[in-house]
Amino acid sequence: MTTSDSVTTLDDLGEDGVLRRLLDRLPRTPTPGLLVGPGDDAAVSAPSGRLVSTTDMLVEGEDFRRDWLDPRLLGIKAAAQNLADVAAMGATPHGLLLSIAAPGDTPVELLTELMDGFAAEAQRAGAAVFGGDLSGGPCIVVSVTALGSLTRPPVLRSGAQPGDAVVLAGTIGHAAAGLELLFARVAPGEDRTLDPVIEVQRAPSPDYSAALRAAPVAHAMIDASDGLSGDLGRLAVASGVRAALDRDALEELARPLLPAARALAARGAPGRPEERALRWVLDGGEDHGFIAAMPGQSVPVGWVRIGTCRAGQPGVELDGTPLTARAFSHFTGDR
Amino acid sequence: MTTSDSVTTLDDLGEDGVLRRLLDRLPRTPTPGLLVGPGDDAAVSAPSGRLVSTTDMLVEGEDFRRDWLDPRLLGIKAAAQNLADVAAMGATPHGLLLSIAAPGDTPVELLTELMDGFAAEAQRAGAAVFGGDLSGGPCIVVSVTALGSLTRPPVLRSGAQPGDAVVLAGTIGHAAAGLELLFARVAPGEDRTLDPVIEVQRAPSPDYSAALRAAPVAHAMIDASDGLSGDLGRLAVASGVRAALDRDALEELARPLLPAARALAARGAPGRPEERALRWVLDGGEDHGFIAAMPGQSVPVGWVRIGTCRAGQPGVELDGTPLTARAFSHFTGDR
Repeated sequence: MTTSDSVTTLDDLGEDGVLRRLLDRLPRTPTPGLLVGPGDDAAVSAPSGRLVSTTDMLVEGEDFRRDWLDPRLLGIKAAAQNLADVAAMGATPHGLLLSIAAPGDTPVELLTELMDGFAAEAQRAGAAVFGGDLSGGPCIVVSVTALGSLTRPPVLRSGAQPGDAVVLAGTIGHAAAGLELLFARVAPGEDRTLDPVIEVQRAPSPDYSAALRAAPVAHAMIDASDGLSGDLGRLAVASGVRAALDRDALEELARPLLPAARALAARGAPGRPEERALRWVLDGGEDHGFIAAMPGQSVPVGWVRIGTCRAGQPGVELDGTPLTARAFSHFTGDR
Repeated sequence: MTTSDSVTTLDDLGEDGVLRRLLDRLPRTPTPGLLVGPGDDAAVSAPSGRLVSTTDMLVEGEDFRRDWLDPRLLGIKAAAQNLADVAAMGATPHGLLLSIAAPGDTPVELLTELMDGFAAEAQRAGAAVFGGDLSGGPCIVVSVTALGSLTRPPVLRSGAQPGDAVVLAGTIGHAAAGLELLFARVAPGEDRTLDPVIEVQRAPSPDYSAALRAAPVAHAMIDASDGLSGDLGRLAVASGVRAALDRDALEELARPLLPAARALAARGAPGRPEERALRWVLDGGEDHGFIAAMPGQSVPVGWVRIGTCRAGQPGVELDGTPLTARAFSHFTGDR
């Protein structure tokens, strides 16, 4: 963002002017499968097979804070968290729709940078930006719909079977660690060893191809937005299995989080760093890794085994003790 | 909404509790074409042919006011304005995704009534509610994506030809008249002759089937959200034609708006009521009628002819005078 006196705002440019600037940030190359792009009443596209659709909203003050905001990273995050839901069904990302509300005094550059991140993440996933909407509002709201193409049966949450391996693709707990660092006023760039987890909090980078590799063999799959305790719990309950986590595998996942946990301990955070790092792995989810259940002999490249599905009371356990979900909620009734 | 002391709020119920209440408002009958509904990472559906997609956001304070709010009507409007965009491409409504942000002290009943209206309008259009998202926020934001199935070529804005009839399905100007009545503090129910236009402002009722009847014969079509001057202007410019409006037809469209115009005159509004009613017809759009261009001999039932496409400077004219668009804008730069 520019800090000069001559910042151009949404009010300065007007709705049509801002929309033109935003559309200018999209790739100019024709997109296969997109027959009518932004500019008519609606987009027209040709997904293969069945259609997968999901939507998610990011609200300033709820899901992100203006003072930590990097608009490009917010654009990446808005695209990634929706595309991860598409990939978690075993579907190929197809297209994205983006609605933005923002106050009239918002710098235009904030939205163009957001669009740059959004379009880049779409491209990384192989999806096109189909269209969107722009509105005024008291704060920044980013609402995204992601669409996917599905040429095989969907991978639901409910298909896990006793004996299946519980497997994970991508990091887990990094985004939660990054959030705690930000709350503890560790600024991005302050300590290079801590930057990677802060980056994951600000913009996850899901491995969509790992989800697609798992689709033919997975009995169940879910996007990890609420951590192992939350999302593996949902998968286990939907499938009627007990997911027993493997402590050694979890400690392996927690190891890269020890520098962050130690940095917080040095700033006076209570408890052992090892315990804190393990909590992030269990309860942190915004990395948008993928959790799946599949036969142990079928685990594809990019996935690691972290537990086993058993018969028994549906839920998640570690060392024989049930885990309670600590999912983020927007409303106090859940806290 | 209840006005008792024991209003249940979003904070009282928590995120999962509110979601359960909202999903309870959806029809329980299986929806043809919807293979996986709300509850997994994403919905799975089977549209026929090509996919049409569009998105639109309604923000409290920008697009609606809390003091005029009837949640059920807001739900209808949120669905209708998106479904109208789908139908304006000549597509059959297929599904809807709904994201809502609201403060934690919002009564749950406000959202369940909103969902009732949303689901009812979806059903009227033949579409299913595929899923959604719920977030906190400083005000109510409703973001909708509508999806459609297209088994013929899309009807774009750009296909009108000189000699085509300009035709309209549905009312136009009623929502604009209703908005002016609300601004003039004419409350719903105060004067029964005025209620119909206020209702259209609060919840349009697009004739989706009229758009589908036009699809095989229309050269161009657009959803009227910004009035004849705005949307017919867009169609004319995209097509490179001059749309000459017929004054007799417009006065016919303005006639039902005379009671509203006279009520405002009685409250001190300047100008002749006939002029005001005609302005609403020209510039008012939130009725979400449909405007199309097609051969004059092909006009289907439910459509009326209001003008003719000619060769010449692209735009809209009335009695030889060019009309300037007065589209609503969220940002002051356009005003």
